[in-house]
Amino acid sequence: MIDDLDSEMRARGISGLVGFGETTLADPDLTYAVGGALTRGSAYFKHVGKQALLLVSSLDFASAKKHSRTNRVETYSQWGYEKLLKKYGNRDQVFPHLISQVLRKERVRGNVVLFGRYDLTRGIQLAASLRKVGVKVVGQRSPTVLEAARERKDNRELEEIRRVGERTAKVVTEVMGLLHNAKERRGRLMIEKKSATIGLMKSIIQSKLAGMGLIAPEGTIFAIGPSGADPHNVGVPDERIRKGRLIVFDIFPQAESGYWFDLTRTFVIGRANDKDRRIFAAVEDAQTSCLDYLKAGQKCETAMELACNVIERAGYHTVREVYTGGAKSVSSGFTHALGHGVGLTIGERPYLGFMNRDLLRERQVVTVEPGVYLPGYGGVRIEDTVQITSKGIEHLAHVEKELELS
Amino acid sequence: MIDDLDSEMRARGISGLVGFGETTLADPDLTYAVGGALTRGSAYFKHVGKQALLLVSSLDFASAKKHSRTNRVETYSQWGYEKLLKKYGNRDQVFPHLISQVLRKERVRGNVVLFGRYDLTRGIQLAASLRKVGVKVVGQRSPTVLEAARERKDNRELEEIRRVGERTAKVVTEVMGLLHNAKERRGRLMIEKKSATIGLMKSIIQSKLAGMGLIAPEGTIFAIGPSGADPHNVGVPDERIRKGRLIVFDIFPQAESGYWFDLTRTFVIGRANDKDRRIFAAVEDAQTSCLDYLKAGQKCETAMELACNVIERAGYHTVREVYTGGAKSVSSGFTHALGHGVGLTIGERPYLGFMNRDLLRERQVVTVEPGVYLPGYGGVRIEDTVQITSKGIEHLAHVEKELELS
Repeated sequence: MIDDLDSEMRARGISGLVGFGETTLADPDLTYAVGGALTRGSAYFKHVGKQALLLVSSLDFASAKKHSRTNRVETYSQWGYEKLLKKYGNRDQVFPHLISQVLRKERVRGNVVLFGRYDLTRGIQLAASLRKVGVKVVGQRSPTVLEAARERKDNRELEEIRRVGERTAKVVTEVMGLLHNAKERRGRLMIEKKSATIGLMKSIIQSKLAGMGLIAPEGTIFAIGPSGADPHNVGVPDERIRKGRLIVFDIFPQAESGYWFDLTRTFVIGRANDKDRRIFAAVEDAQTSCLDYLKAGQKCETAMELACNVIERAGYHTVREVYTGGAKSVSSGFTHALGHGVGLTIGERPYLGFMNRDLLRERQVVTVEPGVYLPGYGGVRIEDTVQITSKGIEHLAHVEKELELS
Repeated sequence: MIDDLDSEMRARGISGLVGFGETTLADPDLTYAVGGALTRGSAYFKHVGKQALLLVSSLDFASAKKHSRTNRVETYSQWGYEKLLKKYGNRDQVFPHLISQVLRKERVRGNVVLFGRYDLTRGIQLAASLRKVGVKVVGQRSPTVLEAARERKDNRELEEIRRVGERTAKVVTEVMGLLHNAKERRGRLMIEKKSATIGLMKSIIQSKLAGMGLIAPEGTIFAIGPSGADPHNVGVPDERIRKGRLIVFDIFPQAESGYWFDLTRTFVIGRANDKDRRIFAAVEDAQTSCLDYLKAGQKCETAMELACNVIERAGYHTVREVYTGGAKSVSSGFTHALGHGVGLTIGERPYLGFMNRDLLRERQVVTVEPGVYLPGYGGVRIEDTVQITSKGIEHLAHVEKELELS
């Protein structure tokens, strides 16, 4: 939560934060600090223990006043941006002066952390220029102050993620309905009067997302049969959709607010065979065990162990053989981690996997997504995005988990 | 062009480039160096005068081999990533070792520039760690090596931008067709059986873009009447679309490849009045003059001057009053710059505005977008994205410029 910034700064001995970027687009930390999107970016200043100060373009002033988390919004012009630009001629020479000026006025004298997604070489130059005028710029390894603060979501964020989740669920349910009702013509499944291919489904999914105000900047996974056996295969556009084959549908859209959601369902159109049923049951059981286990105070690592227990008992390999069994790699069975945080990114802390001894905390939002993959055959993954509470978990979207669409 | 990297490196005294990022998404420089999208990012190494080396996750190896500009693709594992991770425990500690190891093997001994959109504080830490083991990391101000190389587009890029342009033009033409054919019911314009509002049009536009495989990460401007008089007003969702009012429709979508396009049309549904016609004619004349002027070897600044000449002669203010006339600001007339480069970003070099004495070069792609805004009344902007050639310009998309949809 944004209120965690101060404690995270203190824990790291940081006096000041400076967030900087020419847009908040695709910049989760700056979006978070600012409290919303600003097309022309921002320079964000925070002295530990004090309210943040936001400098924005005068074009964004009204919008920043309305949406930002801080009352202290001022414009670059008020801090002499245009004069400095006339003097130095280059934006990249102006900002070191402007930033150091603000830091002096805000009385930040100790270590300063810069954040925001920014070109590395210009960022390194900015740090050098600031150091030259006495600013104590320090680097940080992950988890940074902002990553740590973003782990626990406040009510506004939880509501927004739920809103994204509800819309995502609607798209998934509608797509499953289309497939359920698809008719065969001359041996081919038809959807909206066209031969049902992976490409067609993706275009339908994209249009449905757009209709809900969502985009899928990283694409969508819609993979059938052997393609679905590779968890990273997004699906082959020309491939035809057939009855009786496992289909992995993994959707991870983003709303205009910057928040993401992550949801996977696996199903067969028509009747599944016994092999499919066994895989599906193992994955579903693994997910249920994990969802039952998760709550604030539990170990991330243990959730992963639980999923492996269930899947191994059902007779499949798991990635545990690599971590504790000395295997070099695992190419079949449960080959990836159990889950990850979701928020202003589609993969963030906490990570539900081996080697993570962290305890879960209230207000974290995580995916729970066990899977079993049989190369050359197919895969099953079931994924929900849930909120961690003191008592357990809360689902943020509802879509039925049925193997057969029949 | 990618071939410009060597000359740009030499001009700046740089021996090695290191591109680094955890995804190529929303990272134009890394996408450019790699030659395509890589979900899990890349570490890119280039010794001046030599072919680049790409390190990728083994999951991305096949895709990188297929799409990247270099034949030299290897995996992190081949360079001992897992062993280093076991030793250091944190990814952010692994990469300095891995990067310095590669630079030694590639015999990069001089100045090294890091690039890629990356968290500032982790980037500053990465630079510090690399310097500790002897890598001569230097910062750079804009224009960086990559920004400079990206200015001129190669044939593959021009074709892709044209493809994005053609799809964008199709969406714009279809939307204008819908508005043209809209019928009135009880005094309200109806589209697809709903009352035509800005919000409805935006949702239709988004769906049409999705159907073409395009997204609009920065939104779309669809503004009517006084809203359109502010070039930064994206349009008010609840506002109703009426006949006889200026509508500014500015669309800037991005394809999966990462390339953008930028196109604006202004029109009136039904009949325009004389005032609208005068504004429209001034803006159209300004654009024509500029399009006639532009070709390789001409000055960016002069194009802007030309646009101001035409618009001032027609009786409107221009931003020239600020640059050369000493006015503090201009709130009516032509209040912004003439255009900007388009490619893997929606705003890049070259900039067509005052203070830019650079000469245009073949293979640059720029917007030409004069506008006239009358606060409280409305605005007109006409924008095309064109390619600069030795003989003039080439249009990259075709949409008619008609003031009246009637």
